[in-house]
Amino acid sequence: MKGYAMLGIGKTGWIEKERPACGPLDAICRPIAVAPCTSDVHTVWEGAIGERSDMILGHEAVGEVVEVGNMVKDFKPGDKVLIPAITPDWSSLEAQDGYPMHSGGMLGGWKFSNFKDGVFGEFFHVNDADGNLALLPDGVDPADACMLSDMVPTGFHGSELAQVEFGDTVCVVGIGPVGLMGVAGAALRGASYIYAVGSRPDCVRIAKEYGATDIINYKDGDIAQQVLEKTNGRGVDKVITAGGGTEVIETAVKMLKPGGRIGNINYFGGEDYLRIPRAEWGVGMGHKVIVGGLMPAGRLRMQKLASLLVTKRLDTSKLLTHRFEGFDKIEEALMLMKEKPSNLIKPVVLINW
Amino acid sequence: MKGYAMLGIGKTGWIEKERPACGPLDAICRPIAVAPCTSDVHTVWEGAIGERSDMILGHEAVGEVVEVGNMVKDFKPGDKVLIPAITPDWSSLEAQDGYPMHSGGMLGGWKFSNFKDGVFGEFFHVNDADGNLALLPDGVDPADACMLSDMVPTGFHGSELAQVEFGDTVCVVGIGPVGLMGVAGAALRGASYIYAVGSRPDCVRIAKEYGATDIINYKDGDIAQQVLEKTNGRGVDKVITAGGGTEVIETAVKMLKPGGRIGNINYFGGEDYLRIPRAEWGVGMGHKVIVGGLMPAGRLRMQKLASLLVTKRLDTSKLLTHRFEGFDKIEEALMLMKEKPSNLIKPVVLINW
Amino acid sequence: MKGYAMLGIGKTGWIEKERPACGPLDAICRPIAVAPCTSDVHTVWEGAIGERSDMILGHEAVGEVVEVGNMVKDFKPGDKVLIPAITPDWSSLEAQDGYPMHSGGMLGGWKFSNFKDGVFGEFFHVNDADGNLALLPDGVDPADACMLSDMVPTGFHGSELAQVEFGDTVCVVGIGPVGLMGVAGAALRGASYIYAVGSRPDCVRIAKEYGATDIINYKDGDIAQQVLEKTNGRGVDKVITAGGGTEVIETAVKMLKPGGRIGNINYFGGEDYLRIPRAEWGVGMGHKVIVGGLMPAGRLRMQKLASLLVTKRLDTSKLLTHRFEGFDKIEEALMLMKEKPSNLIKPVVLINW
Amino acid sequence: MKGYAMLGIGKTGWIEKERPACGPLDAICRPIAVAPCTSDVHTVWEGAIGERSDMILGHEAVGEVVEVGNMVKDFKPGDKVLIPAITPDWSSLEAQDGYPMHSGGMLGGWKFSNFKDGVFGEFFHVNDADGNLALLPDGVDPADACMLSDMVPTGFHGSELAQVEFGDTVCVVGIGPVGLMGVAGAALRGASYIYAVGSRPDCVRIAKEYGATDIINYKDGDIAQQVLEKTNGRGVDKVITAGGGTEVIETAVKMLKPGGRIGNINYFGGEDYLRIPRAEWGVGMGHKVIVGGLMPAGRLRMQKLASLLVTKRLDTSKLLTHRFEGFDKIEEALMLMKEKPSNLIKPVVLINW
Repeated sequence: MKGYAMLGIGKTGWIEKERPACGPLDAICRPIAVAPCTSDVHTVWEGAIGERSDMILGHEAVGEVVEVGNMVKDFKPGDKVLIPAITPDWSSLEAQDGYPMHSGGMLGGWKFSNFKDGVFGEFFHVNDADGNLALLPDGVDPADACMLSDMVPTGFHGSELAQVEFGDTVCVVGIGPVGLMGVAGAALRGASYIYAVGSRPDCVRIAKEYGATDIINYKDGDIAQQVLEKTNGRGVDKVITAGGGTEVIETAVKMLKPGGRIGNINYFGGEDYLRIPRAEWGVGMGHKVIVGGLMPAGRLRMQKLASLLVTKRLDTSKLLTHRFEGFDKIEEALMLMKEKPSNLIKPVVLINW
Repeated sequence: MKGYAMLGIGKTGWIEKERPACGPLDAICRPIAVAPCTSDVHTVWEGAIGERSDMILGHEAVGEVVEVGNMVKDFKPGDKVLIPAITPDWSSLEAQDGYPMHSGGMLGGWKFSNFKDGVFGEFFHVNDADGNLALLPDGVDPADACMLSDMVPTGFHGSELAQVEFGDTVCVVGIGPVGLMGVAGAALRGASYIYAVGSRPDCVRIAKEYGATDIINYKDGDIAQQVLEKTNGRGVDKVITAGGGTEVIETAVKMLKPGGRIGNINYFGGEDYLRIPRAEWGVGMGHKVIVGGLMPAGRLRMQKLASLLVTKRLDTSKLLTHRFEGFDKIEEALMLMKEKPSNLIKPVVLINW
Repeated sequence: MKGYAMLGIGKTGWIEKERPACGPLDAICRPIAVAPCTSDVHTVWEGAIGERSDMILGHEAVGEVVEVGNMVKDFKPGDKVLIPAITPDWSSLEAQDGYPMHSGGMLGGWKFSNFKDGVFGEFFHVNDADGNLALLPDGVDPADACMLSDMVPTGFHGSELAQVEFGDTVCVVGIGPVGLMGVAGAALRGASYIYAVGSRPDCVRIAKEYGATDIINYKDGDIAQQVLEKTNGRGVDKVITAGGGTEVIETAVKMLKPGGRIGNINYFGGEDYLRIPRAEWGVGMGHKVIVGGLMPAGRLRMQKLASLLVTKRLDTSKLLTHRFEGFDKIEEALMLMKEKPSNLIKPVVLINW
Repeated sequence: MKGYAMLGIGKTGWIEKERPACGPLDAICRPIAVAPCTSDVHTVWEGAIGERSDMILGHEAVGEVVEVGNMVKDFKPGDKVLIPAITPDWSSLEAQDGYPMHSGGMLGGWKFSNFKDGVFGEFFHVNDADGNLALLPDGVDPADACMLSDMVPTGFHGSELAQVEFGDTVCVVGIGPVGLMGVAGAALRGASYIYAVGSRPDCVRIAKEYGATDIINYKDGDIAQQVLEKTNGRGVDKVITAGGGTEVIETAVKMLKPGGRIGNINYFGGEDYLRIPRAEWGVGMGHKVIVGGLMPAGRLRMQKLASLLVTKRLDTSKLLTHRFEGFDKIEEALMLMKEKPSNLIKPVVLINW
């Protein structure tokens, strides 16, 4: 079979590989909608997860089941399915501990385009089909649904980590596609004021559509300072960090009230350390919670998030600024993600077999 | 001063009383918008809280401060303010325990038209002004804001008690004004499917506007059975009970999944017992949480809920089916609440002094 | 193979059965320590779960692995293991939802001596060995460890459900073996005053050893009344119900403060309804949480509870009032449990193969 | 009146001051047991909170009420009372938000020997007497009870912040008096293995008495590495940081499992930043929660912690290595705290008026 792969750090291309084998609990799917992710770009061109050779990329997909193992009960060939970017091992100690995304070790639930081939192949393998797949609901567009693999669960996890409550004032730092879902999630969880930090005009416009009440632009001065001014020095209730470099935790602590929470959904590359500003963190005693976490996933999560599309609570189509048709357009879509033109939020590739 | 009062069980009328005295921490306000509540009706015509004589009624108001005690720091005469129906004693052990609404004993935070004169007087007394008042934000209509005294915080508390999460399927039993705010709160906290139980056409219409996806009518059969059918026998994730009699807990348990939660915001009169159905409650082991609670209140709560009006996340005006002008219209508004015509959701009285 | 079985309601006896087959994820074990449970008695002589024929009884065991499926990674024949009474399906939607004990449906994690043969056979089957077994730690006595199957996780779950906190006053209703573990759990989670409700002298003595500060005897008057007197009318912070009939929820609500929690670990038979007293439940608004739940189980839970024995935080040997040796003594131990002499807390049967 | 004061950074001495005035909600007390705290040392000799002149020191005391304001209901002259180091303003927005210790601004509940005179005077002032005092229970030694002002609530808050659960493996970094209470709190909340990091022989001995199962000594190598080895590379469930410098957060992150929590109860001086190690924090996605917080306080907290002394769950007397008698010995006790001889854990001064 064919797949679009990382050949090595900095290099990608189409390769031929054997179709993956299906274990007793597994499924083999083929993609019907896929989207490249910024982390694919990090993986290839920044070597973020280290060297990989001939690893098929991609972890955002809607697919069709073509084969299931003999212990799979709830799925069968022909089923159209949502596939989460993270596919935990549900019996693991970490899953029993409430952290399935870390099954088998920190971040161990992230398998596609990390420990195994991703979804940019003609076929791909899904571990624990009953635990990790979900049916694509009738009437939901596969392109829209493709955002449920990573953008929605990651973005919404920001509000979960930050524990957004009715009437909270929330700052969302970063309004790329994940940050936009951070904004949408905060609004959908009951935030009132949402300060979105960003500057690209298209992102700003869509952030407002998703519920941002104020836009903070770094060009207008220090971000934390701007936020403090808006809150009369009190600070925001919650911060969702969905962009920025390692300095973003410092910024977030500075703009946060005592007793507030920072929910980080950013993947940090670069420097060895993030910094907590001692004084603004209450010399260790300010009850400013700092936590970041990989998206929760699995079948139930996919079903629940999909129900938000079915009931029109959430419209992911605003993210999809660029659409492609055909398996061979995956390369073009990924390159677009790499180049990141200013009008890009998220490309999607639809595939008719 | 003049006030509209409960004279005794079953009797109301205008009375003259002395203007209340202002303690060092207190405020005296006059009403600029008030709304009668079903519980005023219960109090007078059902004797729900026992005998009371010459007690001024009402606990939903927006007002203007006319006097403050010498220890009050943050309010002054002339301020337009939100007044919560529940005004806790914030130093009490119960408040320190996280339950300010029970300060001084169960339900002890409920003072207006219960232990002391309510807001249907020319002047009324607010204990702990700094802790319990909040400024009416600029641009918010006093009539809309009047719904923040009780309808919004009570209705929204349903979702808080039930711990509604992204993508939950929620059943809201009862779609009077509190139940409608239960629906709005569930939608605003991220529910996907919201099954609203009710039958009055105007309520049904507005329930849909607030986010109900399905309407369950008791005329179509057993409610729990209808809900179970809609969920393929699985049960809903959460139930908010905002209406019905003592049988509603039984109904709620039957329609709830294991591990689900019932958030009751209903005031139960009538029979001595509510009943938990043993088998459907998992013979005691089904992790179906049953909890009901009086609305959280106080200044911070008022500020946060008001911010939802300012940012247009919530529109309370849909509730206000009947509007009156003038202090002397309080009687008419209360009688309307008592008669409950089918097109009534909530009356409000606006007062220009 | 031989097993001690329920032949039908009211009848037990030794039967011959085929040794269970081992699926790819499963293990076959033989028992090295087993204990009969009051629920075995309910199952047989009260028909609590309905008719069963030739079903091997028992769900409390320490065992030795004799066979594992080809997908099992962490266990091998010869391993001495802890076996929880509840053995969830970890990929199920319910487990993903945080309620593995309800996998496949309410109480669905309870399989031994319910849906399949229990541990009173020469061999027994364990589903998902990697997810549900745990190694018996070195130096821990198998008889003591046998209490980890059900008594400890059930008793301790009372404090988890009730969310016992530092300095809480807790009432534990019922001081059979589960209630005694309820007392021990409350003490180990930081309760100060623990009022234990019971009357059998041996249970009372051991309850004090496990941390009860006061004993409440029903012979001295109404239990709720006695508790209210001890707390100057305020009520306890938390109640753990581990005994009594369907009236115990009513009793618990009456003795509980507003904002308190009832954690039920009782299996309720008998009447169709439990009753919540309306007035003492704050007419639905007292924030008195009522929840009951089947014990959490699985490998991680077993490991964590076992670590409490290893570090001597908990001594389960006080429960073991009657010890037997030999597989054929299972009958005698079960009959003792049925007869329940006043000096019995828990019998255990040790088996040398 | 006389008081032992900070005269300026680096200087202390006895001063004369006017007896504080009593507001309507307040109380004036005189000390009957006081203890100097390491933070008094930081305040004076490190200038940790900046310049202060003629500020009476001390915030740990048991006292006797000598005067109450006219709005105080529950205390009267002659009452022997517990006085928490932190005395919140209970009506403040921060208290309503669940963070009374930050009332009026971050750390704003800390008033004694910070914004106002402390307890090392012949008389001292307590704001909101009904909300912040608690009666000294009969039979509790004032010296033991003096540890309830700060050492116990701070140490125990470590386990609360870290959310220690049954069977958790916990590392407590630092075993001075606060760290020892961190150990005791972890044991009392159900931890199994407790790794205590420290080296002073007397502290090590007492840490074991309070429940430490293993001692980690920095002289034996990198602390995080030692902890990882003890847990087979998995990391501990929770970390309580109660000592060390700004590097301790880095150490804690490295020894923590994904999904674990760090509860900091350390006051950080020194460098401008604490550092989070990017890789070990899961590149931002490891669900390793970092939170630190000032002790919760107030009357209910004091009552609950005192009940642990009454019921003998906790014995604070092990901390009291040095005892003094007489108000004038406060100086000697503070100097001892400054010099910190190796056999010192905590000095206490008992005062007979």
